[in-house]
Amino acid sequence: MAPPTFTGSTDDKGPVLGWLWAIEAYQVLGQALPVNIRCVFEGMEESGSVGLPKLVRELGTPGKYLDPDVCDFVCISDNYFLGKVKPCLTYGLRGNCYFHLTVECSTKDLHSGVMGGVVHEAMTDLVRLLSSLVSSAGQILIPGIMDEVAPVTEAERAMYRDIDFSAEQFKVDAGVDTVSDRLIYSTKEEVLMHRWRYPTCSIHGVEGAFDGEGSKTVIPRKVTGKFSLRIVPDMQPETVERLVREHLDSVWATMGSPNRMTLRADKSSLAWYRDPECANFRAARQAVEQVHGISPDLTREGGSIPITRVFEEACLADCVLLPMGACDDGAHSQNEKLDRTNYINGIKVFAAYLTALASL
Amino acid sequence: MAPPTFTGSTDDKGPVLGWLWAIEAYQVLGQALPVNIRCVFEGMEESGSVGLPKLVRELGTPGKYLDPDVCDFVCISDNYFLGKVKPCLTYGLRGNCYFHLTVECSTKDLHSGVMGGVVHEAMTDLVRLLSSLVSSAGQILIPGIMDEVAPVTEAERAMYRDIDFSAEQFKVDAGVDTVSDRLIYSTKEEVLMHRWRYPTCSIHGVEGAFDGEGSKTVIPRKVTGKFSLRIVPDMQPETVERLVREHLDSVWATMGSPNRMTLRADKSSLAWYRDPECANFRAARQAVEQVHGISPDLTREGGSIPITRVFEEACLADCVLLPMGACDDGAHSQNEKLDRTNYINGIKVFAAYLTALASL
Repeated sequence: MAPPTFTGSTDDKGPVLGWLWAIEAYQVLGQALPVNIRCVFEGMEESGSVGLPKLVRELGTPGKYLDPDVCDFVCISDNYFLGKVKPCLTYGLRGNCYFHLTVECSTKDLHSGVMGGVVHEAMTDLVRLLSSLVSSAGQILIPGIMDEVAPVTEAERAMYRDIDFSAEQFKVDAGVDTVSDRLIYSTKEEVLMHRWRYPTCSIHGVEGAFDGEGSKTVIPRKVTGKFSLRIVPDMQPETVERLVREHLDSVWATMGSPNRMTLRADKSSLAWYRDPECANFRAARQAVEQVHGISPDLTREGGSIPITRVFEEACLADCVLLPMGACDDGAHSQNEKLDRTNYINGIKVFAAYLTALASL
Repeated sequence: MAPPTFTGSTDDKGPVLGWLWAIEAYQVLGQALPVNIRCVFEGMEESGSVGLPKLVRELGTPGKYLDPDVCDFVCISDNYFLGKVKPCLTYGLRGNCYFHLTVECSTKDLHSGVMGGVVHEAMTDLVRLLSSLVSSAGQILIPGIMDEVAPVTEAERAMYRDIDFSAEQFKVDAGVDTVSDRLIYSTKEEVLMHRWRYPTCSIHGVEGAFDGEGSKTVIPRKVTGKFSLRIVPDMQPETVERLVREHLDSVWATMGSPNRMTLRADKSSLAWYRDPECANFRAARQAVEQVHGISPDLTREGGSIPITRVFEEACLADCVLLPMGACDDGAHSQNEKLDRTNYINGIKVFAAYLTALASL
């Protein structure tokens, strides 16, 4: 039996220590570890994990620490339960394609009184381009984008039915209950699918325009809109970039603006998806059932953990995301916490998972 | 003969001193001033002239310093020639209506990975609303706005023909020659009319969204778009505000967004227009012709000098804008200057204007 690899990020000191407690439990009991373990502790996730992908790829070669011949399974403890109590295993993450869309109309900022009316204004063009990307109800208006999305299978649809999740509670967590009191979707299945397995387009802001308080009458000379698409299987960043570019070029052509328009793809990451019926997930599910007496939710996440794919590719092994924290732990936020019950049960699950892996 | 009133703002120290030199010239020559003068020196124009309108209105009452019974003409030296050499008289200014358009979707900023796809995003709604205001070619898309604009008369059109102005040079001054190398209009008359006597709509920026460098993936909870319309005779700010509100309400209704949308009219000022054939302008024209040997350009300005209307209403008298500086003096900018020739000729024009007023 070859060793699994474990990682935990700095905002998950609980899970990191949890793995050490699980190992110590075997030692204190005088039992041999059921599998060999290679640990990767990461302390810079919130600073972009500079160098980590390169290091993992280097270590994932024959004779090195993460030799694909000796690493059969990968496990990452870096995410959270869907709710506060029921444990989960996570089998999917969305990727991301981030764009900088720039329109330039002059070499200098202009006064709207003196110049307004005769200059093609960059900001006028930018808001028109941005408004062509996505509807108020979140529908992506870029032709071809939805063609890339993997269709929903019956097996996948079935997984959503049993998930412990309340769309009403989510509305409160999202802070919209006292504002619009409406999400785009109302059923549990729709809300989860549109957070996990469908792409989205968000407009984050504008650089270079007037962004302060008050009432400045400037015509900004050059403005950059920032937007991104969360991508899902089977979307490829290269295809997404091509479709976005073709769409914006086509809208731009209809506008007849003589201004300078440029689109820059800033960074991108692939989505991740692992069949939750694979051996690694079976071991993890068995461990959860042994400790909690219930089957874990099978979840995906709307965000990205790009290192997941790096580990899988370096070790040539499947990864399971095995969290120990609750949805309200407040990752990276004020008063971040970890419930004592979840911590202790999490340690037990980690230890049981090692045993389950050995018995596969 | 009752006294005219003169003002000059701090960025026009040249004109202010020019008026004092003109008065001193009469004193040194041992001649009586041809008219009585009441001066108003203003030192806070760049700080919003706080208190000045109130003061002027208080002084413009019987028995006070700006008693309408003794003030027959108003003259302000606060603007510039259209070009660098040829003097002008200015008979029109645009007003301004500034708006804050806010869309709110949540009580907190959200993560586009975790929440993207199920929340109606404020920024998506805002760019759609802003894109409905004005076309890339500067056409205001708010129904009814152009109905308020005074039609162009033949006499007015004729005035544009002789004006010393180069659209090509203006393109360079506006900094667009090396970017798009195209203004919205190409003829001298069109460029001037669209800077002076037609309204415009400019989008200045967005408050509350991501405005920094880099690639942040936030969904901003509340964003405020800033835009303004430069207004012209016969537009009323109240009507403009009503039309803008009706238009945005109607676009908003088609969007079907449950978010909170609010429009706030932040501040407004009326346009100003004075018939350049009135007595005050005749005296000013006569003074320019006497000193320069040519007739001045008759110009308008795209910006606003709200105090103009306040003086006229307080004194119940017509105002002429009589500048002494060139278009490239760099008002409020680095290396602000006043050409010596313009300064000396300006002083002569001021003195001649006093004599011309007396001979009306």
